[in-house]
Amino acid sequence: MEKMKITIDTLGGDNGSEPMVLGVSEALRAYDDFDIVLVGKEKELNSLIEKYNCDKERISVINSTEVITCHDAPVDAIRRKKDSSLVLALNTVKDGTSQCCISAGNSGAILAGGQFIVGRAKGVRRTPLAPLIPTKKNDALLIDCGANVDAKPDVLVQFAKMGSIYMESIVGVKNPRVAIINIGAEDEKGNALVKETIPLLRECKDINFIGSIEARDIPEGKADVLVCEAFTGNCLLKFFEGVGSMFLGEIKSTLMTNFKTKIGALLIKKTMKQRFQRFAANDKGGAPLLGLKGLVVKIHGNSKNTEVKTAIFQCRNFIKNDVSGKIVAAFEDGEKAKKAEE
Amino acid sequence: MEKMKITIDTLGGDNGSEPMVLGVSEALRAYDDFDIVLVGKEKELNSLIEKYNCDKERISVINSTEVITCHDAPVDAIRRKKDSSLVLALNTVKDGTSQCCISAGNSGAILAGGQFIVGRAKGVRRTPLAPLIPTKKNDALLIDCGANVDAKPDVLVQFAKMGSIYMESIVGVKNPRVAIINIGAEDEKGNALVKETIPLLRECKDINFIGSIEARDIPEGKADVLVCEAFTGNCLLKFFEGVGSMFLGEIKSTLMTNFKTKIGALLIKKTMKQRFQRFAANDKGGAPLLGLKGLVVKIHGNSKNTEVKTAIFQCRNFIKNDVSGKIVAAFEDGEKAKKAEE
Repeated sequence: MEKMKITIDTLGGDNGSEPMVLGVSEALRAYDDFDIVLVGKEKELNSLIEKYNCDKERISVINSTEVITCHDAPVDAIRRKKDSSLVLALNTVKDGTSQCCISAGNSGAILAGGQFIVGRAKGVRRTPLAPLIPTKKNDALLIDCGANVDAKPDVLVQFAKMGSIYMESIVGVKNPRVAIINIGAEDEKGNALVKETIPLLRECKDINFIGSIEARDIPEGKADVLVCEAFTGNCLLKFFEGVGSMFLGEIKSTLMTNFKTKIGALLIKKTMKQRFQRFAANDKGGAPLLGLKGLVVKIHGNSKNTEVKTAIFQCRNFIKNDVSGKIVAAFEDGEKAKKAEE
Repeated sequence: MEKMKITIDTLGGDNGSEPMVLGVSEALRAYDDFDIVLVGKEKELNSLIEKYNCDKERISVINSTEVITCHDAPVDAIRRKKDSSLVLALNTVKDGTSQCCISAGNSGAILAGGQFIVGRAKGVRRTPLAPLIPTKKNDALLIDCGANVDAKPDVLVQFAKMGSIYMESIVGVKNPRVAIINIGAEDEKGNALVKETIPLLRECKDINFIGSIEARDIPEGKADVLVCEAFTGNCLLKFFEGVGSMFLGEIKSTLMTNFKTKIGALLIKKTMKQRFQRFAANDKGGAPLLGLKGLVVKIHGNSKNTEVKTAIFQCRNFIKNDVSGKIVAAFEDGEKAKKAEE
């Protein structure tokens, strides 16, 4: 096997190229079985590579003269800004130079670029964006949270399979519990989409489908793969962020109320920080866009070096475990079985 | 105007009749412009009325020999258990004895009973369940969170109007900001339902429609009425409960970690309790089922006296402000305008 290559779009994020290169330098020191392609302002990148003492042998740089910002219309930006860091980074996956691409840029553009430039893997109908969210126990994969809404039942079944493969191969969960997000626990509950999808999921022999999960039970950690249509997933993901931020803000205000609470704050601060670390995004890597011919990982716009490093490890696992290949195989088997039945 | 009457289904809740009667006794002492109908076990109720020294002149009791439990299939239970406390309570609204009914029972049965027994108000297509949820600023009305999913755009427009009337008349928000829950802020974002609904909402002159709201911004308090289809609303409401419980659990564990944090806990406990009080359900009353010929309010299964009392005040406001009448008028006007256009 050729040496793995992972591409980083160093522009587009809120913090510029510096945390990207710092994260790369840390990742390179941790493992020696992959190389990095950096896309961005060549001159700046070269001086950052120098500054952080990166192994130059393992990094190649592609110069970019444009950047897609959060104000750009996604599809339009992908079509017009041919020399943007995101388009150039995705091109490296398309032409096979690299197997993965990480970007902190415009989410819509990453989703559109993933589909238009990298392209869907054979048999895949939709490419879901699937972040990990923390629960009381482990992390669970919320699939789909993308912008491509109104999916049909057969597409949700594909999400269940892709999510299952991802959790097993990348997160290391054996026989991951797959549930569909619903408004009740029983099979007869739900909207038309969910009611049509449940029997299809029950038929799947290659996943461990445990039925419906109510949103209340998601933080209980009762499932590993949470299947939903993108509108629901996107709403839940953003609501999680909003509610989390509200509670944390409330705790901070509580601690700053008066002298007594400020002393209390000093006593619990360290433990609090440790315990709440796992709710932070930076130790989970990014959200993979699954079902493409390569992997595209979207990290937060305000990502720092730790998130970049974790996303690189995530990509490394993805390539090593041939997740793309497994997804294609799962869908080819499905197609074959369907044809055999006909 | 006849004296207001409010009916309480005293069975069906997790805590039995006692907190119901206690809540009633407190409510009766606060205002003298309404009477109460209690439905439940007559003998037990009479002794509780005695125990809590309620004003007997203002209470009538209806005996019930059955109860609908959380294990009953909603529609079936409403049809078969004719002598259940819920059915008898709803009957008092149907026959005009009472204007409102409060129940802590089976949610599905309350929704079904509201529609089948009390009946929809003229012009109302669907009867949404609309709880208040806390935000960083004020409470916002999440409409619809019920079990009646896959609503169409014109139904969502009705939800926007009903929600607006409720927030203005009951919660006292002037010119409430109405937003539709969406996956982006721009009008071209969304699923088919939301995209079709937005132009209809923009046309409504009787509501203050401010456009789309992303779920992340709900806890920021950027809107007063949050319009959504019931599947989304139900998921968000339950997720709010789940995520809230996870964070509170995490805080509690943090405070109990070691001797140092336990001392810290003692110092912040009182302030914490005060600040987090507004996230508790018991000071918001219940979730109204809007658009019926009377009002039906669903309170939590584990409601205590405070929630019962608050729900009674909520019903009192509802009747005093003739919210049912306002809803009917809003829809009649809409119908007239439509006919005039044709």
